[in-house]
Amino acid sequence: MDVEIIGTGITGFGMFVDTRMRELAARAVDQALEDAGVSGDEVDLVVFGNAAAGLITGQEMIRAHTALGGSGVAGRPMVSVENACASSSSAVHLAAMAVASGAYRTVVAVGAEKMTSQDRTLAGRALGSAVDVEEVGAAEGPVFMNIYAAEARGYQERSGASDRDFAMIAAKNLRNGSLNPIAQNRTPLSADEVLAARTIVAPLTRPMCSSIGDGAAACVLTSAALARKRGRPGVRLLATSVGASTAVDTGDIVSRTAAAAFEQAGLGPGDVDVCELHDAAAPAELIIMEEIGLAAPGEGAKLVREGDTAIGGRIPVNPSGGLLARGHPIGATGAAQIVELADQLRGRAGARQVESARVGLSENAGGWLVNSPAACVVTILGAPA
Amino acid sequence: MDVEIIGTGITGFGMFVDTRMRELAARAVDQALEDAGVSGDEVDLVVFGNAAAGLITGQEMIRAHTALGGSGVAGRPMVSVENACASSSSAVHLAAMAVASGAYRTVVAVGAEKMTSQDRTLAGRALGSAVDVEEVGAAEGPVFMNIYAAEARGYQERSGASDRDFAMIAAKNLRNGSLNPIAQNRTPLSADEVLAARTIVAPLTRPMCSSIGDGAAACVLTSAALARKRGRPGVRLLATSVGASTAVDTGDIVSRTAAAAFEQAGLGPGDVDVCELHDAAAPAELIIMEEIGLAAPGEGAKLVREGDTAIGGRIPVNPSGGLLARGHPIGATGAAQIVELADQLRGRAGARQVESARVGLSENAGGWLVNSPAACVVTILGAPA
Repeated sequence: MDVEIIGTGITGFGMFVDTRMRELAARAVDQALEDAGVSGDEVDLVVFGNAAAGLITGQEMIRAHTALGGSGVAGRPMVSVENACASSSSAVHLAAMAVASGAYRTVVAVGAEKMTSQDRTLAGRALGSAVDVEEVGAAEGPVFMNIYAAEARGYQERSGASDRDFAMIAAKNLRNGSLNPIAQNRTPLSADEVLAARTIVAPLTRPMCSSIGDGAAACVLTSAALARKRGRPGVRLLATSVGASTAVDTGDIVSRTAAAAFEQAGLGPGDVDVCELHDAAAPAELIIMEEIGLAAPGEGAKLVREGDTAIGGRIPVNPSGGLLARGHPIGATGAAQIVELADQLRGRAGARQVESARVGLSENAGGWLVNSPAACVVTILGAPA
Repeated sequence: MDVEIIGTGITGFGMFVDTRMRELAARAVDQALEDAGVSGDEVDLVVFGNAAAGLITGQEMIRAHTALGGSGVAGRPMVSVENACASSSSAVHLAAMAVASGAYRTVVAVGAEKMTSQDRTLAGRALGSAVDVEEVGAAEGPVFMNIYAAEARGYQERSGASDRDFAMIAAKNLRNGSLNPIAQNRTPLSADEVLAARTIVAPLTRPMCSSIGDGAAACVLTSAALARKRGRPGVRLLATSVGASTAVDTGDIVSRTAAAAFEQAGLGPGDVDVCELHDAAAPAELIIMEEIGLAAPGEGAKLVREGDTAIGGRIPVNPSGGLLARGHPIGATGAAQIVELADQLRGRAGARQVESARVGLSENAGGWLVNSPAACVVTILGAPA
C-alpha cells in the first residue's frame, strides 16, 4: 500500500473529569506533528475518530472541528468518523486510503474520547448506543460485560480454560501497564488478587474488565516515497482491513477480517512479533488470539500459562497493558493500539520493549449485533525499512 | 482521479414521521445497486454519512450497521462519517479515496437523515449541535436562519440586491422542485407569493428557508477501468475537495474549497454547465455563486433577474429544487446533490433536464464556527465518456 506512519502522539489515559476532549485531542495531535517533523500547514486532511461525544457532551455534527480548533491542524480539511470502539482504527484506515489514493500527501488520523463527566450516567448511556437501539432498545447496565461473560463461559466449556487463566491475562496486562507511563491502571496485581476482586458478572472480576476513561492518540501518515524524501522512513502500513457483521452473521467477523489483513500483507499469523488485541474483558484476549490464528483452537490458555504472551515470550500480546490496563476511552483505543505498535517497531517502547519486533498486529472491535461485534479493524505494521 | 459513479439511488424527500431511517437508507442503497448492476456482495466498503441520529434517535456508534442491516450491503465493511450538513458529500469523498487507493473495487457512499419524529424538539436540538457546543452553548431557535438573515443583509448592503431578488431564487427553486418527483416542496410560488409569506427572520420569509425533513441518497463508485470492463461507463468524478474553517478563519472557506476543486479538475467556473448549491436559505445561493466565481462579485442578482440560473438559462442552479424545494434532511443533502448532477449528466433528469450538460458542480456546506461554515465540500462531475 506504500503508506507509512511517520509520527505518533498519545496522552495519558485516565479519568480526567476536569479536562476537555479538545485538550486531549490537541495534545495527541501536536505531539504526533512534532514527532513527524511536520507543521500543521503541511497536513492535507484530518480524519477524526470519536464514538460517543454526541451523547456525552451534546456535540455532534462538527466533532472534529471543535475538538481540534486549538491544535496545530486547526483549519485543515477534516471529517469525523464513527465506528463504535473501532472508530479510530477506522480513522487510520480512511487516512491510509486518502494517502494511497495519491490525492493527499500528509494525513493525520486521530482518536479521542472523553467518557468521564460530572454526570456519571452519560458514559453508560453512550455505551448503550453501541447496539441496535431501535430494535433492542438502548442497552442498560454492564451490557458488554454481560456479553463477554457469556462468551467466556462458552469458551470455558469448549476449551476447559479456568477462571485462573483469565485472571492470568489480567495480571499480565496490568504488569505491562505498570511499565507504560500513559496507562490508566498501573498497579500490578497477582492472578490471586484478580480472582479475589469484586465480581462484575461471573466469571469476570473487576480487573478482568476494562473501565471507562479519557484519552487521545494520533498518527501522521504519508507515502513511503515522501517519507524517504524527508529522510524519515516510517513504520510501514502493511495491511488495514475493515470487517462488519450483521444480525444474521455467523460471528466469525474477527477471523474474516484478520484473514483479509494477512492476505493484504502477504503474511500469516506466524510472522507476527507483537500484537495489541481488543481485551475489553480478559477472556476476549484468548478468544481473539484463536480467532486470528495466533493460537490453535482451545490452545490459547496454554500459551498464557507458559508465559508465551508476556513481554519476552514467544508472541507478546498487549505490551501496552491493553484495554484492561492502558484503559479504553472507546474512540481513542484503536489509534492507541497503533501508536503502541509503532513505538514497538521503532524500538522506543522503553521498559516494555519487545526485542527485535519487526511485524505488529492490532485488532480493534466495536459495537454488538445479536451474536457478534458489529465492526472489526485489523491493522498490520512493519518496522521501518 | 479515475473514479466513476456507476449507479445512484434516492428516496422521496419529505416529512415521514412513521418511516424509519433504515427503510429510507435501504431503499436508496438498493436502488443504487440495481442502477449500477452490482450485487451487494460485490461491494467492498460502505461509507455512511449521517449528521444527527445520535441526538435524534439515541443511536450512535454503529449508525451504518443499524441503518443498512436490511439493505443489500448488510454485512459488508462499513464506517459512519459525520460532517454536519456536509456529511454525505464527505462520505462520497472518502469513498472516492478508497477506490482511488486501489485497495477497493466497488464502494457505496450513502447519506441518510431522519429528522422528523414524534418529539418535534429533537431536530432543533440536533441542528443546535452544529456549533461549538462547549464554547457557545448548543444553539437554540432558528439559529441557521439568523445567520443566513445576517449574511443576506450584509450582501444587500454591498450589492444593492433586493428582497425580491431573494424571492425570485425561492420561486425558481420551487418551480424546479415542482418538476422533481422526489422533492419535498412541489408547489410552485411566484416571487410575490414568496415575499408575502410569513417572515421567519427578516428578510427571510418561510419559502426562502429550507425545512427539516427525511430522506436518503446513495452512489456506487468504482474505477474508470472497472466501469469500462463492465461496459457501463459512469459519471466521471473530476474533483472532490474538502475544506474546513476555524474560529480564526477569514470566512473564505467556500472560495478556497471551490478553487481547490477547479484546480483538481483542470477546469474553471466558465466550464460548469449545471450546479447544485447549498441554498439552506435563498440568499445563500447568490452568495455562493459569487464565492465560487459563477458570478462576478455583486452580479449574482442580475443573473437571477435575467433568468440565467433557471433551467434553460446560461448556468442553471439547483435544477433539483435545491435545499429549498427538494428538502434538506441534513446528512442526505450532499449525496442528493450528487445524485441530481449524475442524473443531469446522464440525460435522465426528465422535465428538469439541462440540455447538453457535460460538467456539473455541487457545493455542500455544514456547521458554523464564529463567522463561517465549519466544513465545505465541492464536487465536480463530468458526463460519461
